[in-house]
Amino acid sequence: MTAASIAKDLRAAIRSGTYKPGDRLPSEAALMSNYGVARMTARHGLSMLKDEGLTVTRHGSGVFVRSFEPIVRDTTGGKADGSSTVTAEIDETGAGLTVRTLAVTAEAEAPEKVRTTLGLAEGDKVTVRERLHLRERKPVLFATSYLPASIAAGTPIAAQEVGPGGTHARLTEAGHAPVRFREDVVGRMPTIEEIEELRIEPGTPVLSVTRTAFTEDGTPVEVSYVVLDAGEFMLRYDID
Amino acid sequence: MTAASIAKDLRAAIRSGTYKPGDRLPSEAALMSNYGVARMTARHGLSMLKDEGLTVTRHGSGVFVRSFEPIVRDTTGGKADGSSTVTAEIDETGAGLTVRTLAVTAEAEAPEKVRTTLGLAEGDKVTVRERLHLRERKPVLFATSYLPASIAAGTPIAAQEVGPGGTHARLTEAGHAPVRFREDVVGRMPTIEEIEELRIEPGTPVLSVTRTAFTEDGTPVEVSYVVLDAGEFMLRYDID
Repeated sequence: MTAASIAKDLRAAIRSGTYKPGDRLPSEAALMSNYGVARMTARHGLSMLKDEGLTVTRHGSGVFVRSFEPIVRDTTGGKADGSSTVTAEIDETGAGLTVRTLAVTAEAEAPEKVRTTLGLAEGDKVTVRERLHLRERKPVLFATSYLPASIAAGTPIAAQEVGPGGTHARLTEAGHAPVRFREDVVGRMPTIEEIEELRIEPGTPVLSVTRTAFTEDGTPVEVSYVVLDAGEFMLRYDID
Repeated sequence: MTAASIAKDLRAAIRSGTYKPGDRLPSEAALMSNYGVARMTARHGLSMLKDEGLTVTRHGSGVFVRSFEPIVRDTTGGKADGSSTVTAEIDETGAGLTVRTLAVTAEAEAPEKVRTTLGLAEGDKVTVRERLHLRERKPVLFATSYLPASIAAGTPIAAQEVGPGGTHARLTEAGHAPVRFREDVVGRMPTIEEIEELRIEPGTPVLSVTRTAFTEDGTPVEVSYVVLDAGEFMLRYDID
């Protein structure tokens, strides 16, 4: 009996519903005894399922069938008060996410891709906001937003507390209401820093969303790079 | 020197641009000699990068830094003739995708999730279309669409060749014009069948899109389950 055969058996049992989401799989010891294999073989069989994203390991208590109960991030629509930031949208789901502002920089050098997206000249500064969203105590989303410092510096957007309605409410008050958004979504494996920052399970990709906000006349006023633990989210788009 | 240290060195060299997308990394033999390690250590170091999705292996020619040149799947908008199927949209990108209709079933049992989404009663039949999209000769997207057989059976939708404008053009002609769409996007690791079907590289997730089409009065007329090789696509949403 090989590790691959053990993985195949367990995979079939998960698909057929013998083991349901949240159920515990047989331990290494149980697999060793059931299949008459060495511990390394049993362990390798289990690790194959983990790499496929079918299971998660809770240390000390075993290997469980992954359950996917995603936070629905509903992006479209946007609210009447203009508060359609990622933050506001997610809070709408009632998922009880908390948002931690990690850092705000009033005036920073703009990375080249940001400069290009925002149509800035070399040397133009940007205001940068870095935020982490947590579901219960698990970090699930990391976002970095860049706005032209010519718009944002000296306003609450450059302060730790941006105030009710978020960045978009402040932009709207300042006459730069964001009314159109573009989201570019890719899926990829997390970097080692993202695995650490978002405490991502093995066998779990991230969704990487580049979100650009435009005013009525098509001027880009904000670009955000959002990295979401794909084990925690579903992105919903309603399109007319 | 451990495999992890070798991986760390190579990862840093990829990030700094010493090795650019498409460049070949040092061979196992070169790593063995540079670091004074056994073949298994060199191989393990390289395989860590592959699992992180940083590299791809071309058999016989080595390990290369992954280059991401995505097909932009632009979902929003939809065209005046109503041909906003996944097919039509992708063809708009000029990526030169070809579409292969794998199977069409005029009347089939509806899986429970399909019945729920389409608001069908138990026993109601569905028309099923399965399609594979290829970029050059690499399969990149697999889609299965379900429509109520009460609408689709006996029309070109239930035929191998659905005709110009695709399914949506036929629905429109039949008075069931799809005008609103919902897309639910998740990222996950591929199943072993998907790895085979789409020839997915190790360290590459899939994007799984559930797309539902509604008529003006909110009736769902089609639900499609679309699996995309995340190494090949970017999903673009423009939101007003």
